[in-house]
Amino acid sequence: MMSAPPDSNDLFVGVDLGGTLVRAGLVNGQGHLLEWQSMPIEARQGPQAGLERIHGLIDCLVAKTDRGSLKAIGIGSTGPLDRERGTIQNPYTLPGWEDVPVANRLSQAFDVPVALENDADAAALGEFWLGAGRSVDRLYMVTIGTGVGTSFVERGAVYRGIQGAHPEGGHLVLQPGGPLCYCGARGCMESLVAGPSIMRRARELAAKLPHSQLYAMAGGDLEIVDAPLLMHAARAGDAGSLGLVDQIAAEIAQGLLNIAVLFLPNVIALGGGVFENLDLFQPAVRAAFQSAAAIGPVDKVKLVPAHLGKRAGVYGAAYAAIQLSANSS
Amino acid sequence: MMSAPPDSNDLFVGVDLGGTLVRAGLVNGQGHLLEWQSMPIEARQGPQAGLERIHGLIDCLVAKTDRGSLKAIGIGSTGPLDRERGTIQNPYTLPGWEDVPVANRLSQAFDVPVALENDADAAALGEFWLGAGRSVDRLYMVTIGTGVGTSFVERGAVYRGIQGAHPEGGHLVLQPGGPLCYCGARGCMESLVAGPSIMRRARELAAKLPHSQLYAMAGGDLEIVDAPLLMHAARAGDAGSLGLVDQIAAEIAQGLLNIAVLFLPNVIALGGGVFENLDLFQPAVRAAFQSAAAIGPVDKVKLVPAHLGKRAGVYGAAYAAIQLSANSS
Repeated sequence: MMSAPPDSNDLFVGVDLGGTLVRAGLVNGQGHLLEWQSMPIEARQGPQAGLERIHGLIDCLVAKTDRGSLKAIGIGSTGPLDRERGTIQNPYTLPGWEDVPVANRLSQAFDVPVALENDADAAALGEFWLGAGRSVDRLYMVTIGTGVGTSFVERGAVYRGIQGAHPEGGHLVLQPGGPLCYCGARGCMESLVAGPSIMRRARELAAKLPHSQLYAMAGGDLEIVDAPLLMHAARAGDAGSLGLVDQIAAEIAQGLLNIAVLFLPNVIALGGGVFENLDLFQPAVRAAFQSAAAIGPVDKVKLVPAHLGKRAGVYGAAYAAIQLSANSS
Repeated sequence: MMSAPPDSNDLFVGVDLGGTLVRAGLVNGQGHLLEWQSMPIEARQGPQAGLERIHGLIDCLVAKTDRGSLKAIGIGSTGPLDRERGTIQNPYTLPGWEDVPVANRLSQAFDVPVALENDADAAALGEFWLGAGRSVDRLYMVTIGTGVGTSFVERGAVYRGIQGAHPEGGHLVLQPGGPLCYCGARGCMESLVAGPSIMRRARELAAKLPHSQLYAMAGGDLEIVDAPLLMHAARAGDAGSLGLVDQIAAEIAQGLLNIAVLFLPNVIALGGGVFENLDLFQPAVRAAFQSAAAIGPVDKVKLVPAHLGKRAGVYGAAYAAIQLSANSS
């Protein structure tokens, strides 16, 4: 994707803008992190205040450097976005941020090009550059947390669909007639295995089984039952919790198998809170991949935990900045 | 993908090798079909006899042309294949054809480069070049006939997975716990909606409903019940048949929705015998796409019947030959 490797004196800023925090790092073209900052975004104070916070954060990062060495800024942001126009489009997670021209504003302020990427794509670019899918030809990343985020990075370039849009692979339908999702479908992956869905299912289970360890572990308070507690109860041998975890593992296996069958990527990188319990799900996924070997090298697709954790978005945004800088120079 | 457009005097042969017939055409770089031949492949006579038949077919096609104007040959073949080595690997549909070096043999015989493609990929390349997905950035093709074939053509290039393999998207799992498929999964798309699966389901339905129009249309002979008869009975208003067709439409809609969500292609081209009844399935698919607009431009993905019918494979194989010729010159 890049016309030339960046000069080692060239510097890039990566910004990871989430619903709660904004994180930012200053990196060089080799991926060395030179500075790191984070702060609450306080989205409810509005986009103007938010942009000023981001501006201030970048000021801190570049305070000790020559202004000329900063070559580009990348932003990975919670969506939806208009990437071409560089605007954030009223995301659910940033209330009141309607059509905010974040790329233009930062480009004018720092006099460098600014790349805007979907946060899932930024994280995958980070894992491609420095993490779980380093330099592989085809990296698919699935992040299961509050939602299910997906990204496909093909030879270092983010895959984009019609109108340049980011495909929301987390809304793959797994179970017709399953729970209704805001996406319009029933039984999509997000409606079944995202953190809040697991919490809901665990609470329903605990309510039905007041003599279970799960119920006891929550002290009888269903409000305390969540995805991590379910995993904990399953590990402690609670039969009902084990049954639900097996069911969730089968659903995750179906989702990842479908991705493996359709894309045959070299690596599927797994990120997000739910995959902190990857060992509970991996056997089901592996078995599904092995049994599909009759239709191609599905069993050769590697499942790899994401490496970069909360830094993936910042690194990936910086990598998007490097790509933009290389393509525009 | 191509370094230069082909000269209008350059000629290319496309071969479509199926389990029953081999079809071949001589085309120029503008896609004009100059000659056409087809004959039974008679696979049971063995690969040696088969290769001689293909050789003879190409001899007929090029008999009237200068030998120097033939620039390359493309073959779209029933799989599995080893594309890199140019060999056909013992496909179910060509019994006894183990590791047959079809590309090398034809390359030596005609002294031109030979491209070998999976038949689904060849058909999609044909539709990209001259048919339903002409020059679109992202063309996904789904062919439902004896099996469910898929192909993804991205800016004119066939998408390939790990080890260069062809992803068998027809084995996308739609219904956990559904019918067992040879792919190892239960409830994959092929196990539910391929022609033989529809036939099986229609026979089960007819057996249960001896007073139905479906049963009457078959004269009470279940051996006569097949996918086209089911569609016919549904059109005639048979309630049971309509119910089964609606169920199949919902499954096809789920499969195509998943492809649309994951790839956001500009066009999904629909080929094969089952889609000759596309009007029975299209409303369910359209409704599913419309309702998913909340997560991106899924509703902008066009559903288009494949245009080239039985010629798609020959045209696409010829297009693969053109690409090979351009890349090797």
